[in-house]
Amino acid sequence: MKIGMIGLGKMGSNMRERLRRSGIEVVGYDLDENLRDADSIEEMVEQLESPKIVWVMVPHGDPTRSTVEKLGELLQEGDLIIEGGNSKYTEDRELDAIMEPKGIGYVDCGVSGGIWGLDNGYGLMCGGRDADVERAMPVFDALRPEGPREEGFVHAGEVGAGHYAKMVHNGIEYGLMHAYAEGFELLLAKDIVKDVKGCFQAWSRGTVVRSWLLDLLVTALDDTPELKGIDEYTTDSGEGRWTVEEAIENAVPMPVISAALFARFASRQENSPAMQAVAALRGQFGGHAVKMLDDESSRDPEQVEVHQGAEAQRPDPGESRPGDGS
Amino acid sequence: MKIGMIGLGKMGSNMRERLRRSGIEVVGYDLDENLRDADSIEEMVEQLESPKIVWVMVPHGDPTRSTVEKLGELLQEGDLIIEGGNSKYTEDRELDAIMEPKGIGYVDCGVSGGIWGLDNGYGLMCGGRDADVERAMPVFDALRPEGPREEGFVHAGEVGAGHYAKMVHNGIEYGLMHAYAEGFELLLAKDIVKDVKGCFQAWSRGTVVRSWLLDLLVTALDDTPELKGIDEYTTDSGEGRWTVEEAIENAVPMPVISAALFARFASRQENSPAMQAVAALRGQFGGHAVKMLDDESSRDPEQVEVHQGAEAQRPDPGESRPGDGS
Amino acid sequence: MKIGMIGLGKMGSNMRERLRRSGIEVVGYDLDENLRDADSIEEMVEQLESPKIVWVMVPHGDPTRSTVEKLGELLQEGDLIIEGGNSKYTEDRELDAIMEPKGIGYVDCGVSGGIWGLDNGYGLMCGGRDADVERAMPVFDALRPEGPREEGFVHAGEVGAGHYAKMVHNGIEYGLMHAYAEGFELLLAKDIVKDVKGCFQAWSRGTVVRSWLLDLLVTALDDTPELKGIDEYTTDSGEGRWTVEEAIENAVPMPVISAALFARFASRQENSPAMQAVAALRGQFGGHAVKMLDDESSRDPEQVEVHQGAEAQRPDPGESRPGDGS
Amino acid sequence: MKIGMIGLGKMGSNMRERLRRSGIEVVGYDLDENLRDADSIEEMVEQLESPKIVWVMVPHGDPTRSTVEKLGELLQEGDLIIEGGNSKYTEDRELDAIMEPKGIGYVDCGVSGGIWGLDNGYGLMCGGRDADVERAMPVFDALRPEGPREEGFVHAGEVGAGHYAKMVHNGIEYGLMHAYAEGFELLLAKDIVKDVKGCFQAWSRGTVVRSWLLDLLVTALDDTPELKGIDEYTTDSGEGRWTVEEAIENAVPMPVISAALFARFASRQENSPAMQAVAALRGQFGGHAVKMLDDESSRDPEQVEVHQGAEAQRPDPGESRPGDGS
Repeated sequence: MKIGMIGLGKMGSNMRERLRRSGIEVVGYDLDENLRDADSIEEMVEQLESPKIVWVMVPHGDPTRSTVEKLGELLQEGDLIIEGGNSKYTEDRELDAIMEPKGIGYVDCGVSGGIWGLDNGYGLMCGGRDADVERAMPVFDALRPEGPREEGFVHAGEVGAGHYAKMVHNGIEYGLMHAYAEGFELLLAKDIVKDVKGCFQAWSRGTVVRSWLLDLLVTALDDTPELKGIDEYTTDSGEGRWTVEEAIENAVPMPVISAALFARFASRQENSPAMQAVAALRGQFGGHAVKMLDDESSRDPEQVEVHQGAEAQRPDPGESRPGDGS
Repeated sequence: MKIGMIGLGKMGSNMRERLRRSGIEVVGYDLDENLRDADSIEEMVEQLESPKIVWVMVPHGDPTRSTVEKLGELLQEGDLIIEGGNSKYTEDRELDAIMEPKGIGYVDCGVSGGIWGLDNGYGLMCGGRDADVERAMPVFDALRPEGPREEGFVHAGEVGAGHYAKMVHNGIEYGLMHAYAEGFELLLAKDIVKDVKGCFQAWSRGTVVRSWLLDLLVTALDDTPELKGIDEYTTDSGEGRWTVEEAIENAVPMPVISAALFARFASRQENSPAMQAVAALRGQFGGHAVKMLDDESSRDPEQVEVHQGAEAQRPDPGESRPGDGS
Repeated sequence: MKIGMIGLGKMGSNMRERLRRSGIEVVGYDLDENLRDADSIEEMVEQLESPKIVWVMVPHGDPTRSTVEKLGELLQEGDLIIEGGNSKYTEDRELDAIMEPKGIGYVDCGVSGGIWGLDNGYGLMCGGRDADVERAMPVFDALRPEGPREEGFVHAGEVGAGHYAKMVHNGIEYGLMHAYAEGFELLLAKDIVKDVKGCFQAWSRGTVVRSWLLDLLVTALDDTPELKGIDEYTTDSGEGRWTVEEAIENAVPMPVISAALFARFASRQENSPAMQAVAALRGQFGGHAVKMLDDESSRDPEQVEVHQGAEAQRPDPGESRPGDGS
Repeated sequence: MKIGMIGLGKMGSNMRERLRRSGIEVVGYDLDENLRDADSIEEMVEQLESPKIVWVMVPHGDPTRSTVEKLGELLQEGDLIIEGGNSKYTEDRELDAIMEPKGIGYVDCGVSGGIWGLDNGYGLMCGGRDADVERAMPVFDALRPEGPREEGFVHAGEVGAGHYAKMVHNGIEYGLMHAYAEGFELLLAKDIVKDVKGCFQAWSRGTVVRSWLLDLLVTALDDTPELKGIDEYTTDSGEGRWTVEEAIENAVPMPVISAALFARFASRQENSPAMQAVAALRGQFGGHAVKMLDDESSRDPEQVEVHQGAEAQRPDPGESRPGDGS
């Protein structure tokens, strides 16, 4: 078997390698000359045998759309496109609606596993017509982890269902990560568990919270003790947002995943406008001095400690005043 | 009528003044020589006529406890202590249990209104025995706003009930403030409402969201256009925490007030440990570079924009890669 | 001045009345024969004098769209449509894009105040071109509360800005309502404040949490003591959802308003699928019996109390077991 | 080696069995005559050889306290108590303070693994003095999973540290469970993924969200397709509450775990008082009819659908009215 693959980044390159290890030939294309096997998408398509299969692995949105539309011009009736990126399910449906009249099959496939998928295999969720999915099964079987097919692969439904499943997967992922993260912060804040990394590591086997993410957190704590020096700044790549938007559209309460999403937004703010408003309001009703950003002392930990101490512990009763003033 | 008052900070001084305006004599004590009328608590107590009433207005915790205990030694059967600070209701009960055998009355009184109470009057919630509350009514009537008594005063229940009501009041206050704050941030983030202050001001009359806090936010926006330069750093004075703790103890879901409380905690963090963990995890599974705090470029807005642009908009399909890698 | 008004429901009828009280003639149209002044939209338009102004006050979505499109056929260059319903701002832009080439002005106006607006006046936020807003000012001045114009009216920006402001207003409203609601539930759950209504009423003046919504809650507690018998079931009308969606699109953390929105979703669920999953998971790892819906005893309060008592208080050490099993 | 064990419920019985399989003799006591090896705690203690070790496995709170205090009278200097239940860490410290002067060692040990621990081994987190922990190591090694000791066991710190770690473990567990649960609900609500169980099963290998809890959810979905008929009612056993309380005390933002906790509270409410307040408020300002619990039609799905349809889709513009009225 021989397929084309467009997009040879971290994910695509590893997937090409895993396919090759299982005996599937891959003609890869990427803008980066050092990564690609063919010098153009046209050349890549020419090297395939009909009916042709091309796996698209580029960022969602415009890149995926323009890539698929270009393939729509180069491929022929009976060929098959597998959209393996993180497209929104609605985008899949739009692209399929363009391909379907041409007789070009379209399967969307969510791929999970990150850089570890090369060796562990990738969890796959796909959507599409039965015949199209059936034709792509050798590719899916090569990419998914060893073991029973149903433990690493699902044909979730019509076109779009695969990326819908992957979207929910990523939403859950946000929630899981943040649950561990909150536990980590509490253990660190309260100086009673002396060996925080050891504590997470001890959860690796036997416990209810054991998981792959837990194992990764132990590795991270090995690499960077107490995660010192790591910046909180965390991006989000779309699926988390879509998951919460879908929840809203379907009237599904989603406090946990949305909280994890909002925490990512907050991690990218230097100074929260909402909290500026809260601070300003407190100043208005309580007469509390509002700290200004250019006030050198305002964030000085020692200053703050003294200030808090003054409020909380001033031993002479007559001197101190109720703190909030509200 | 003549009462004593201990604690002449922002709140206490204004309350003394409001009482005096209504014809009640006040002998005030404070550590600050410039504020006080008597040079010691003993001297203050001596100047009162039996049965004596002393209003305590110092920070909750140790200061209030030591002040009340001292009064327990100086006052006599038939006298009355009004704890007007922000004590926890359990503390009231403990202090009352000390005073009760001595025949000294104890009334706890939550006071709301901030620095505006001097002119507007203070909202009062008190707890205690009927006879004690009855005796203190002239003081309460002088402090509360003009108008029907029940619109600015409540005898909420036994000792502790007043501060319990005030605690819940402050919890609600956290939620209200944050609701406005989130709206403010969204209006600022989305550049479609051109006159954000004008928008809040237009809500002052007729709308569902009109309130005193809204009026204060308009004033704050007058004082500091768009709140520019105000530091997000916001303290919390205890009642918000207690409210959520009470919710937990009573199995009451409290997502809104707890979210407002957590946002205050977050406002005081330079770098969230929880988000460090999330960032580290993403690095582990996705091979994403983890930003370090000492990386000069990591928070450079322009850098970030370029980076995001690169992910989201790279027009040439072959060049780009799925962002999350999960 | 004489204008047309389409949609004479609770809001529209009251607004017609308020306009008439201020001397503005209104020709109203509604499907309900008992409410309308003209028997068709065509007839209504005919009765106006050029340049004509028509206020549209029907539900957002298809009804508003079809109404405006019909007006687009009946009105002429120089006429003006005011969309006073709760349209999404993007819808306003689409409708304006249809009207603009015809020379028909389009102003979107968010209206707040509910059934009380008839007497109190309505808070108004509008978007549109300066000349169009200027022309409609007599109508806005008649509808808004008395007092300074800027305290009940804002020209927030271009077309769409008025409804954007109203959307945020409603999002804030969700948060405010839920903050009071959480406080109410806690006061009710903890039997320490004996007079819950009295407590809310005492917050009416002087306190930090005083607001119109608070006043309404007091009235509700007057009408229905402790709100007994009221069903939790609460709908949401769109603006709350849009507010959170906008927050997500603009990377604005919005924990409070989203929590209030999710609580509404939950109020409409008989049996939460998410909590079914949590219950099922507990059963799997802990061997806890999972309650089934058709189990008559499962929700029997007395049963549950006995069960909890058994877990928490079984005095004989040998008999009892750790509860969670995790 | 021979130890005593008090409390032979689901957890204790399995642990006794696992210890015996590894060659450790166990004299068990329980109120249930069918489970116990000794007929009284005294008899159990007598059967042990000095220095004696007794594992306590009864519910936290009074049962644990009275059991440990009784052991304090029966054991002698040099003996050791292992508190393996879910005590709060502060309780451990209090109990240790009673035992320490008697020369009786005290080790607290959090145990995770549920009913699966018998075969898989239990994850263990303990706190205590080095010598005491050292002495108990054969017991811990028998209970923990096979493999490296540090992947199923940690000596987390002083007395209390073990249960602190277990408390945080359970808090994280709440968050993890709810993240999967939200994903489950969304997949069910949106009828696009046709095989929800298959979707979760496909995440078992290779994906980022793979975990033991995920495996259990797949089993639950096998046992009860789509979890139909399972009651949402979910108890909580203390550690989740303590985790959030600790977060509050230490100013740690904890939106995810608290949301999961609040959802459990809500699952046990027939009618949310907070949402009663929200519904009542909407009725007050919008003139919306408030549904009453005794209104037969109020929860009739068909009625509601008709009602919503009426609001959202009434095609004739003149008939319909803005929904919210705010």
